[in-house]
Amino acid sequence: MRQSKYFLKTSKTTPSDDISINAKLLEQGGFVQKVLAGVYDFLPLGLRVLQKIENIVREEMDKIGNEMFMPVLHPKENWEKTGRWQGLDVLFKVKSQHGNEYALGPTHEEIVTPAAQSIVASYKDLPLAVYQIQTKFRDEPRAKSGLLRGREFRMKDLYSFHSSAEDLEEYYNKKAIPAYEAVYKRLGLNALLTEASGGTFSKYSHEYQVETENGEDTIYVCEKCNLSKNKEIYQEGAECTNCGKTTWRETKGSEVGNIFKLQDKYSKAFNLQFTDKDGSKKIVLMGCYGLGTTRVMGVIVEKFNDAKGIIWPEAVAPFKVHLLGLSGAEERAAKVYKEVKNVFGESEVLFDDREVSAGVKFADADLIGIPYRLVVSPKVPEGQVEVKKRNAEKSETVPIGNLAHILKK
Amino acid sequence: MRQSKYFLKTSKTTPSDDISINAKLLEQGGFVQKVLAGVYDFLPLGLRVLQKIENIVREEMDKIGNEMFMPVLHPKENWEKTGRWQGLDVLFKVKSQHGNEYALGPTHEEIVTPAAQSIVASYKDLPLAVYQIQTKFRDEPRAKSGLLRGREFRMKDLYSFHSSAEDLEEYYNKKAIPAYEAVYKRLGLNALLTEASGGTFSKYSHEYQVETENGEDTIYVCEKCNLSKNKEIYQEGAECTNCGKTTWRETKGSEVGNIFKLQDKYSKAFNLQFTDKDGSKKIVLMGCYGLGTTRVMGVIVEKFNDAKGIIWPEAVAPFKVHLLGLSGAEERAAKVYKEVKNVFGESEVLFDDREVSAGVKFADADLIGIPYRLVVSPKVPEGQVEVKKRNAEKSETVPIGNLAHILKK
Repeated sequence: MRQSKYFLKTSKTTPSDDISINAKLLEQGGFVQKVLAGVYDFLPLGLRVLQKIENIVREEMDKIGNEMFMPVLHPKENWEKTGRWQGLDVLFKVKSQHGNEYALGPTHEEIVTPAAQSIVASYKDLPLAVYQIQTKFRDEPRAKSGLLRGREFRMKDLYSFHSSAEDLEEYYNKKAIPAYEAVYKRLGLNALLTEASGGTFSKYSHEYQVETENGEDTIYVCEKCNLSKNKEIYQEGAECTNCGKTTWRETKGSEVGNIFKLQDKYSKAFNLQFTDKDGSKKIVLMGCYGLGTTRVMGVIVEKFNDAKGIIWPEAVAPFKVHLLGLSGAEERAAKVYKEVKNVFGESEVLFDDREVSAGVKFADADLIGIPYRLVVSPKVPEGQVEVKKRNAEKSETVPIGNLAHILKK
Repeated sequence: MRQSKYFLKTSKTTPSDDISINAKLLEQGGFVQKVLAGVYDFLPLGLRVLQKIENIVREEMDKIGNEMFMPVLHPKENWEKTGRWQGLDVLFKVKSQHGNEYALGPTHEEIVTPAAQSIVASYKDLPLAVYQIQTKFRDEPRAKSGLLRGREFRMKDLYSFHSSAEDLEEYYNKKAIPAYEAVYKRLGLNALLTEASGGTFSKYSHEYQVETENGEDTIYVCEKCNLSKNKEIYQEGAECTNCGKTTWRETKGSEVGNIFKLQDKYSKAFNLQFTDKDGSKKIVLMGCYGLGTTRVMGVIVEKFNDAKGIIWPEAVAPFKVHLLGLSGAEERAAKVYKEVKNVFGESEVLFDDREVSAGVKFADADLIGIPYRLVVSPKVPEGQVEVKKRNAEKSETVPIGNLAHILKK
């Protein structure tokens, strides 16, 4: 991609009303643009990151469920059935000029449960799991943390349906948890499984928390096995439910996922039943499994940055290679661009061919944070290119022919 | 994909309040489920079709613009600036409990134009084009045509920015139109370029219309060159703007795309300027290019069906192969499933392994409309499989080893 023709401009201006690191770096780097507090345009550079995150999530979720796509507009009746039309304070309500009222979906239990009614009839149909990656809405009073707390945000939400508590338990532990851990590993995040309040329907739910300096949650990490507890349920000296140890380390965390055993809370409200082996009708049990993809993008930035800008993990970087063609070496740079595209594919190379100073190009490259920076300048010998990893101290100058080897290792 | 474990159930019930062919077949086939009039769940089978359509659109649009992603919630001020807060009758308005008012985006000129202000400064930055694939909203009084007229629907919208009328003209004719034609060709649709009213800002806009029996538009097709005119601008005996002929054929069409030269309508409202070569400030000119992806899915169903169900064009079929394992040949079918997956990839094979009668399986296969049906039954000799194209009269029985050859030709 030629940067001169890309819908991208970096900026030196700091957002005036949001001091979070992710808002600052993502806005200055040209990844997102604020439309209103908690609502962003994802510019092409930012959308590339989001799509890479969502594709990783999709690949892992495809192993444990079927992807579907539910709507944003929800009938008021569905939310009244579960008591959340009045009960959920952040619910956005829309009144049509033709009289009907709708909710803008902040979560989709009120939609997926009735959807399952036409699919689930017998115990033979269970277990079953579906997920979607969809935009969600919360009527937040304040939204000042960039992508961490949006009025409009993206989320993967998976729902599972079971014929027994044991089956739910097994899916939860042996399918959902491993799938979540595979996602975080691929994203380059060390996410801690954290016990949190289960609300009205379960003893615990689980969150995944990433340790960050400015994390919104206080968590306690077991010093032996790393199982964590959210402050809301932590008691000093409590035994770790995993290893029995009683020593905990206090730290700050940012939540990047939340999984619940819903049990019969929603299936009862919608009377979602199945016919069991013995012919009796029983209520389906459910689990739900959330992962905010825009939030994860914000947390990655909070976690991986330095004074100069973002340091993207390779799996989610907008491009793999940032090629800078400096003044006096334009033609050579264009030739190198062609060769590098051949090796990594057009879609993985951003070529800074703008008529701006070397200083501007270097500063922008550090801010944007693409993993490998290649420089072609009059100082670099013909047939060679200067390579630097974003988080390395020094660059090395190598023959172009060796690039593939160096970048792929 | 094993059908017994898929979030799918076909139905014999006809939608009670929607007589359109696409609503009937898509709901009965388990592709979509109605949540409220004009608002649908895309079940896994339906989402696969939609994703295939959207990927084709994405691949062709990537050749002429950068993908971005704009929000659903729009600030009221932006819509007041263009006079459409009051002027657009189908605008969905949301009032936050914290006082602010928002529009739910039915189109994104009010968002993309201010977004471009931070990107476009000089003539060197132009031309530029961005697009998105996003959910849109219209507060429709009635919505009774399945995916053809939604209150919530999916759309690709592209916006282009230019320094002169000639440059806009060139992009419109030499980039946008060829990209649109490439999309329809890949989708298997014969879409007619149709002159339509240009509204307040242009003599004409262009629509793409597909001839369908129940099309909502009346169009006139030039008997010589196929350029068409929408009834709203047709005058009897008018000369064709392309070939000069004056004979027209009247027919019914379903609109599958709409492209406009916006000129300076929105750039003026947001004062989107650039500095030209001579140092003077000028208003940017814009074009916009819409293509409803859920609508296209509905039109494909309206166009390609018979008394038994849908006949998907191969490029957008939910799966390429539907394998039916009949009673008495379950083990052989499972073996064939393995082999077929090896050839076409797991994601392109739906395996009907349910414990239901052959009649139900055949009827469902016809309804769902996957291009190739394979049958393994006690009647089919060991090592062979019965193959039938969805729209063919007869099946043929072939050795499994020849399948790849037959299905790939």
